[in-house]
Amino acid sequence: MNQINKYIEDNKDRFLDELFGLIRIPSVSSKSEHRADMQSAAEYLKSSLLDAGADKAQVIPTDGHPVLYAEKIIDPSLPVVLVYGHYDVQPAEPFELWKSPPFEPEIRQGRIWARGADDDKGQLFMHVKAFEYMVSFDILPCNVKFMIEGEEEIGSPSLGKFCRANADKLKCDIILVSDTSMIGKDVPSITTGLRGLSYLETEVIGPERDLHSGLYGGAVINPVNVLTKMIASLTDEKNRITIPGFYDDVLEASPKEREEMAKAPFDVERYKKQIGVEDLGGEAGYSAIERTGIRPSIDVNGIWGGHTGEGAKTILPSTAHAKISMRLVPNQSSKKIDELFIRHFKSLAPPGVKVRTKVLHGGEGYVFPVDHPAYLAASLAYEETFGKKPVPFRSGGSIPIISLFEQVLGVKSILMGFGLESDAIHSPNENFPLWNFYKGIETIPLFYKYFIEKAE
Amino acid sequence: MNQINKYIEDNKDRFLDELFGLIRIPSVSSKSEHRADMQSAAEYLKSSLLDAGADKAQVIPTDGHPVLYAEKIIDPSLPVVLVYGHYDVQPAEPFELWKSPPFEPEIRQGRIWARGADDDKGQLFMHVKAFEYMVSFDILPCNVKFMIEGEEEIGSPSLGKFCRANADKLKCDIILVSDTSMIGKDVPSITTGLRGLSYLETEVIGPERDLHSGLYGGAVINPVNVLTKMIASLTDEKNRITIPGFYDDVLEASPKEREEMAKAPFDVERYKKQIGVEDLGGEAGYSAIERTGIRPSIDVNGIWGGHTGEGAKTILPSTAHAKISMRLVPNQSSKKIDELFIRHFKSLAPPGVKVRTKVLHGGEGYVFPVDHPAYLAASLAYEETFGKKPVPFRSGGSIPIISLFEQVLGVKSILMGFGLESDAIHSPNENFPLWNFYKGIETIPLFYKYFIEKAE
Repeated sequence: MNQINKYIEDNKDRFLDELFGLIRIPSVSSKSEHRADMQSAAEYLKSSLLDAGADKAQVIPTDGHPVLYAEKIIDPSLPVVLVYGHYDVQPAEPFELWKSPPFEPEIRQGRIWARGADDDKGQLFMHVKAFEYMVSFDILPCNVKFMIEGEEEIGSPSLGKFCRANADKLKCDIILVSDTSMIGKDVPSITTGLRGLSYLETEVIGPERDLHSGLYGGAVINPVNVLTKMIASLTDEKNRITIPGFYDDVLEASPKEREEMAKAPFDVERYKKQIGVEDLGGEAGYSAIERTGIRPSIDVNGIWGGHTGEGAKTILPSTAHAKISMRLVPNQSSKKIDELFIRHFKSLAPPGVKVRTKVLHGGEGYVFPVDHPAYLAASLAYEETFGKKPVPFRSGGSIPIISLFEQVLGVKSILMGFGLESDAIHSPNENFPLWNFYKGIETIPLFYKYFIEKAE
Repeated sequence: MNQINKYIEDNKDRFLDELFGLIRIPSVSSKSEHRADMQSAAEYLKSSLLDAGADKAQVIPTDGHPVLYAEKIIDPSLPVVLVYGHYDVQPAEPFELWKSPPFEPEIRQGRIWARGADDDKGQLFMHVKAFEYMVSFDILPCNVKFMIEGEEEIGSPSLGKFCRANADKLKCDIILVSDTSMIGKDVPSITTGLRGLSYLETEVIGPERDLHSGLYGGAVINPVNVLTKMIASLTDEKNRITIPGFYDDVLEASPKEREEMAKAPFDVERYKKQIGVEDLGGEAGYSAIERTGIRPSIDVNGIWGGHTGEGAKTILPSTAHAKISMRLVPNQSSKKIDELFIRHFKSLAPPGVKVRTKVLHGGEGYVFPVDHPAYLAASLAYEETFGKKPVPFRSGGSIPIISLFEQVLGVKSILMGFGLESDAIHSPNENFPLWNFYKGIETIPLFYKYFIEKAE
């Protein structure tokens, strides 16, 4: 057994205990009732990083939730790796679908079950422990900075300003992030693309109060009926998005690129089984992996209106609501798409209803070149611990801040995700395999080693 | 001041106190948590009717909520008027929109504000007090029976069986009902038609859990996207219902009938203002009063799926739900429409989702002939107290039990409603003007008087 494996073996229970302490703090960034928890989670990480060997660590206030900044500068002439992560989590609702309480982590079947077990508390804690290992054996090959925010799940509204204000402090050579997934347990992968996001909430407003659906039904425009028509019309029979101008900035992938993508290991039957559906769907002319990797998409994330409780209430609802988001591909601007959506959606409403749409969240897509030194370093690290070269992979997810880092700090981010698609992030029963957690801790120090070698 | 007006004047506060006692019981039939309240409301009416002069009154159990039956038989050879009403009410949600608590009646601006103030506690209580008046002055001209059920708002599932089992006990010459509205405060009207109802709840089932909308969006069929397409397709660009066979049994109104309907006083501008909309809508080629009176309609009464709370949760929901109801015109069968809907709706779903639809509630439409003795009696009664002849009116609402009475008991029901459209029944801030409440008590005894004259 080599040095890192022995260190993990000797400390594995403590690592979990420490991670569990962080998970138990219900740091749900989208809910105002959790404001105090956000502060607690940041403070918890501050202690963790100081214990792990940081020279200094600060909980820095922002207009929203605080950012945890920490650093260890061993030699100002050496390169700097900046670790980015987030301590905030998605809401855990619906609670009744969880097999164990979302904020009370439990080990079952070799996995940690809890909100944030993977996204992103579990994954960012791998970095804290890998850092601790390198410090304690005095093998840290460069300077390290940590920037852990509390608003990733709501679109990082304060982090742009934070980065601009602290550009000097955040100077670095590469940003290292574990907030993505591997293609499969045995298929290490490096995320080389992310989609952008436009997330809006809309309200269709009809009569000033709920009406009796018998006395008024047929003569008064029903906002829910209308909303369904408006949403339905946003895609055509080929599942292409009908918003005028929507595809204007989409760069079509070349036949060569699509050929390369088709080589990635992807088992459609296993994919369907994993999520419990008999069939997939999506834009005509593209494979499933292309539909999430290189094509934009539109999803209703939530819809509500009228009587949603038990029984039959015969009302014509006064209002109808939906949360609608679009995933964008690199080169689409989320701001532009927001505007196109709002204008088009309003134009779909018949007279007799009003429409109010607001932007909740957004960010741009991202591409990482496979010949970058950080890509090569990550590839060597994976190869050493997994026994095989990682696969470059365009993810369907969005980490809006990644493209912002490039704009503001001028630095690329290498996305070394150790999660699995079966981790059910954003869903009930989120989980993270212990194997992946420890594998991450084992792989990360090798990235540092090879990155410094490549950078020299 | 004549005898009835003096009686009302002398007793008006007591009448309200007694009605308020009934309103304070939150007898919401659709919610299992109110089971005990249903029994209490029936018992309350039992006492009220015994106090008012009934010979006997019984709370009779059914498979659902109990029926209150009471009678006063003054001479078995005389005709029998059977008063029908219901003590159950619609749910009061959303509570936050009420200006005063729904089950704590309050008098403001000359109106009673509470759930059930009009529908139907206020209106049925007029009959209890009119009966009390006739008994106390010994001017009751015939026998009277009361049948007050507790399941009208959920489609009267137990009353058919109850009527069949008690057909002898319920024998009568006319059924008298106040559960409808007048066209306007100064326009007394008799409801000569009701629409039928098919009320269904449907669920579209996609992946087995909520998925991350980035990782899966575009490749996995989103049940909410699908549900909006399915609902949207149920009506065409003329707002006609597209379910195959839906209009097969609809009897088109003759030009003559439509001409008569167009004479009814109906102020579109006032109607729009009353409900706070700038425009109406509905089936092309029909007026607003026709769209609710003689044409079927389809309304989503409720819709829900995915994240409906605060903030931006980026999920692709696992399921989507809707409550959808259709108002039917006489001659359409709600059972047949249920079946047509279920079959058609299922056929709209793409592979990759499952659809489950169940019937929640239903009933048939109804027509009352304007040359019936009860119509003539009601007309004379209104003329005497309102100073003008009432207008025959086809209501858009449904009282499924009315057509069932005709089938099971072979008796017509005369619909003498004293409510107003502004009473906001089924909505927050339901109310009932005191003027209408007392006017009802004044008018009802005259119906008895003229009906016996006509019947003799």
